[in-house]
Amino acid sequence: MKLTIKKEILLEALNKVSKAISTKNLIPVLAGIKFELKKKRLTLTASDNDITIQTFININNEDDIKVEKEGSIIIQGKYILDIVRKLPDKYINIEVIDELKILIYTENSEFNLNGISEEEYPNINLDESKNKLLINNKVFKNIVNQTAFASSNEETKPVLTGINFNVVGDILECNSTDSYRLARKIVKLEKSTEENYNIVIPSHNIMEFSKILDDDEKENIEMNISGNKILFVYKNIKFQSRLINGTYPNTSNLIPNDQFLIIYTNLNDLYDVIDRASILTSDKEKNIVTLETNGNVLTLKSSSQEIGRVEEKMEIKKNNQEDIRISFSAKYMMEALKSFQTENVELHFVGEIKPILVKSSEDETLTQLVLPIRTY
Amino acid sequence: MKLTIKKEILLEALNKVSKAISTKNLIPVLAGIKFELKKKRLTLTASDNDITIQTFININNEDDIKVEKEGSIIIQGKYILDIVRKLPDKYINIEVIDELKILIYTENSEFNLNGISEEEYPNINLDESKNKLLINNKVFKNIVNQTAFASSNEETKPVLTGINFNVVGDILECNSTDSYRLARKIVKLEKSTEENYNIVIPSHNIMEFSKILDDDEKENIEMNISGNKILFVYKNIKFQSRLINGTYPNTSNLIPNDQFLIIYTNLNDLYDVIDRASILTSDKEKNIVTLETNGNVLTLKSSSQEIGRVEEKMEIKKNNQEDIRISFSAKYMMEALKSFQTENVELHFVGEIKPILVKSSEDETLTQLVLPIRTY
Repeated sequence: MKLTIKKEILLEALNKVSKAISTKNLIPVLAGIKFELKKKRLTLTASDNDITIQTFININNEDDIKVEKEGSIIIQGKYILDIVRKLPDKYINIEVIDELKILIYTENSEFNLNGISEEEYPNINLDESKNKLLINNKVFKNIVNQTAFASSNEETKPVLTGINFNVVGDILECNSTDSYRLARKIVKLEKSTEENYNIVIPSHNIMEFSKILDDDEKENIEMNISGNKILFVYKNIKFQSRLINGTYPNTSNLIPNDQFLIIYTNLNDLYDVIDRASILTSDKEKNIVTLETNGNVLTLKSSSQEIGRVEEKMEIKKNNQEDIRISFSAKYMMEALKSFQTENVELHFVGEIKPILVKSSEDETLTQLVLPIRTY
Repeated sequence: MKLTIKKEILLEALNKVSKAISTKNLIPVLAGIKFELKKKRLTLTASDNDITIQTFININNEDDIKVEKEGSIIIQGKYILDIVRKLPDKYINIEVIDELKILIYTENSEFNLNGISEEEYPNINLDESKNKLLINNKVFKNIVNQTAFASSNEETKPVLTGINFNVVGDILECNSTDSYRLARKIVKLEKSTEENYNIVIPSHNIMEFSKILDDDEKENIEMNISGNKILFVYKNIKFQSRLINGTYPNTSNLIPNDQFLIIYTNLNDLYDVIDRASILTSDKEKNIVTLETNGNVLTLKSSSQEIGRVEEKMEIKKNNQEDIRISFSAKYMMEALKSFQTENVELHFVGEIKPILVKSSEDETLTQLVLPIRTY
């Protein structure tokens, strides 16, 4: 393998795949990045057995990349990234000598790295399926931002550590819950699928994928689902994650359609009021605050015997004359509010011990649900 | 105690003293900030027994602060800071009711905090001495930035965890060493002292003080040294730290006056070359790199059997035809280089197993010394 490549192009590609480099893996070869150089394409692959990221650079402009000899090698991910990041030169030369020695050099710098033979790299299947789901890049990133935070971090219920993607026809319903709150996003796909899917994608993995996406609002992401894997394809990136086994709980009956009271308010104002009301609460107690309405005045309260108590007031609008008194986790409610990108927000109350719905007429695709907490 | 105060003024004062709030202290009252309100002045004090910070707000403008009733109280530091930071109002009211209940309120917010009687606060002497040392604010901040990093973190040699301030006449010599490297800064004071001082100030504490200083280049800091304490006074801030007991090692004979070779180079270029040469080294091995000259070419090398090897070259100037080959910690050398704010830098070599001096003709006040490491 021998090539000359523009530093910024190589660095961009390395940054993309580096999220999948294993740092604690017991299989040394997975700490490396696989370089595969063909006449027309340089492909980089990294995998930690949980996710695999692959990206390629097409070779059609000698100003960007020039191939002198095809070949493949595994290069230690941590070092190649550091080297390329810190080299000041515009072009970088990479050459494999004596089969497993990698020479990375520019005018004044020369790095000799020990490589690993590509034969030792696991065989990872990244084939695309015939049935692809297409989803707009921006819509996809919104799904991740608006639902992933509500997943559980506890491995005791593995299925709750993921986001449930439920596809029927051209409707994709995404649910994420840790059993104290629920985030639901419903979007329309560009095309109906032939097959229906009901899968659970690890939240941590889908967030990693979301991070390497650019801001192009016009491009689509392809989703290839097969067996226990999902393969995302976006531009020159392939990102594969395992799926979580198990049946996702049916959440559809959790979201009530009737309510006895709706509160209308500015999102940021409500967020700030809850934020201040929770200053004197502690994480251990799940930051419990109590919300009360009295006509058009909303009061947020909390108290702690040791520290003291708070009372915050703000004006709101309501859909009727009913009033409510209900307690919940300030942290969960603030995270639910933060997921909206709207100016205003609505709280729907079904009962004093029933879930609180957070919605906005400005974005009908998103529903957040926060369970109340009984206080005595 | 009862007052109305502009939020931003109170927040600035709280931010200053909050560095001294004890978070893990076993004495609960030290988790608080002492508020002392007199007709003409509001004074805030915080202390963790190691450092004490006091600041005051003069009361001469009703637009800024208005006193309705004098008094004193200890308020939980963590909560008052959070409350004031998060209140959106321009003015904040603070009132003590029933002796130990603190009411903090604005139009829509009301916080009730449990206070502690000021009688329970330790009596901390912050009296200024007759003999003050005066030092310019900017010069002082440079001393801290250019020397503190070289102190030891190991409590086994307590005296090396501080910066040695040695004052004779109008000359202040500051030394900091962890016994592998030494930072020395020599500055001229504005006035001669009547008394000479040789003290050791904990590096961590002096860095905390440096952080709360503003960027005013004209103001002086007063240093009051008495017994085992140093009290810094700057504008409306008093900052007191304990001193470290013990005799600081005599470092004057460490810095040689003769050398057989001087290398002249651009600072950033040399820094980057060492940075890259150390990519393949590990922290465990203290990032050892080897520097070699051959005529006007400087080569930086490092190698690790497992990972590989690097060779970096750059052009330099020298004061004679001598050459050198010497190994040192890349980390220590980079920290030494980073302490200079100059464009160019000089490396002075006394011998292959003798300390390397880092100097710059653009700043004669600073000398850094890095010990070589023997490699076989």
